[in-house]
Amino acid sequence: MSVEQRLRDLGIELPAVPAPAANFANCVRTGNLVFCSGTVPTTADGEIPKGKVGADVTIEEAVEHARSLALNLLAIVRQEVGDLDRVRRVVKLLGMVNATPDFREHSKVINGCSDLLVEVFGERHARSAVGMCSLPFGITVEIEAIFEVD
Amino acid sequence: MSVEQRLRDLGIELPAVPAPAANFANCVRTGNLVFCSGTVPTTADGEIPKGKVGADVTIEEAVEHARSLALNLLAIVRQEVGDLDRVRRVVKLLGMVNATPDFREHSKVINGCSDLLVEVFGERHARSAVGMCSLPFGITVEIEAIFEVD
Amino acid sequence: MSVEQRLRDLGIELPAVPAPAANFANCVRTGNLVFCSGTVPTTADGEIPKGKVGADVTIEEAVEHARSLALNLLAIVRQEVGDLDRVRRVVKLLGMVNATPDFREHSKVINGCSDLLVEVFGERHARSAVGMCSLPFGITVEIEAIFEVD
Repeated sequence: MSVEQRLRDLGIELPAVPAPAANFANCVRTGNLVFCSGTVPTTADGEIPKGKVGADVTIEEAVEHARSLALNLLAIVRQEVGDLDRVRRVVKLLGMVNATPDFREHSKVINGCSDLLVEVFGERHARSAVGMCSLPFGITVEIEAIFEVD
Repeated sequence: MSVEQRLRDLGIELPAVPAPAANFANCVRTGNLVFCSGTVPTTADGEIPKGKVGADVTIEEAVEHARSLALNLLAIVRQEVGDLDRVRRVVKLLGMVNATPDFREHSKVINGCSDLLVEVFGERHARSAVGMCSLPFGITVEIEAIFEVD
Repeated sequence: MSVEQRLRDLGIELPAVPAPAANFANCVRTGNLVFCSGTVPTTADGEIPKGKVGADVTIEEAVEHARSLALNLLAIVRQEVGDLDRVRRVVKLLGMVNATPDFREHSKVINGCSDLLVEVFGERHARSAVGMCSLPFGITVEIEAIFEVD
């Protein structure tokens, strides 16, 4: 089934493509690979959620942030290749949680992004989930991604 | 010389392929590249070693963990491509140590993985070695890798 | 315009290629991609700057370190491909700042590297900017990079 059709069936509408916050591009295509920059989450209000997961932010909140981030990634890739049906697969995520030193639930948080991508593309990707000491602007989670495209 | 033969000469037997702990695949192949997920170490008892390197875990212990992790990576790639003689080279590692803020010996720790891979493949790879604030389940080290295959 | 010519016009001379501090290569080429290792900055005195950004090191100092790191990356890639006019573009940076837990200005720091690369290559790259708990030898910033080459 078509990826664009699946998004419609799931009732998912992609947000506007986020503007890069510094001197970089949202993604770069080289050959059949699209390398996406470290991308930020957004709340339903269009805000960028901030705080340390495990202290100011609960796991459940961070999962929602990671899910919103998946939508931002899809919006970026759609803009790059014109149509998500030209995406063959998600290759890899590097999921970086702004976490406390004793946080252990990075996998649960990054599943917020992975679950949505697996639902949309129908297969699993490679992934790392790790805890950062700090992130730009204090955002709760940042994920970079590699997609394979036609 | 064949990589599989070199493993036999070194007396190295690869462990069972570890099961992903969340919604991801151990690796994804795209073209001639295999992107491996952030992979965990295992002890001789089959346990996943936990703790902060520089506090609960010594450098020597962490080196052993990184070495075990190299074997897990090789097991994952062998399962993906069927035979390690189809691996042309290790392209890059991202070696992430669960370290204290004043830890400085990341290179020594990740050499535990690199030394084994250099011994097996006969040439050096690109690499980053860095210190994380926290890692999933409190594991001591996590390494993701890119391999070039036939 | 030629990249090598632009470097001359900007009055930029590349430093000697840094020696890897452990068992790895500065970069590995696979197909049209060059994967550079996590690379270190150098000061005008040829020292490797150390300290935590946000505590021992100011943002302005760290920006200079990131700029010096861009020159080290270019020196590495020139040595690999012989001539920077064979570089088609910078694909991606992973910019890792040795930062305090409440640091928020990672984007400013990594712009020190990105600004120079954008000036030299004339277009933006993908990028992540993040805060690490610790880095090897206590260096202030470490950046890995992917270049697309002819």
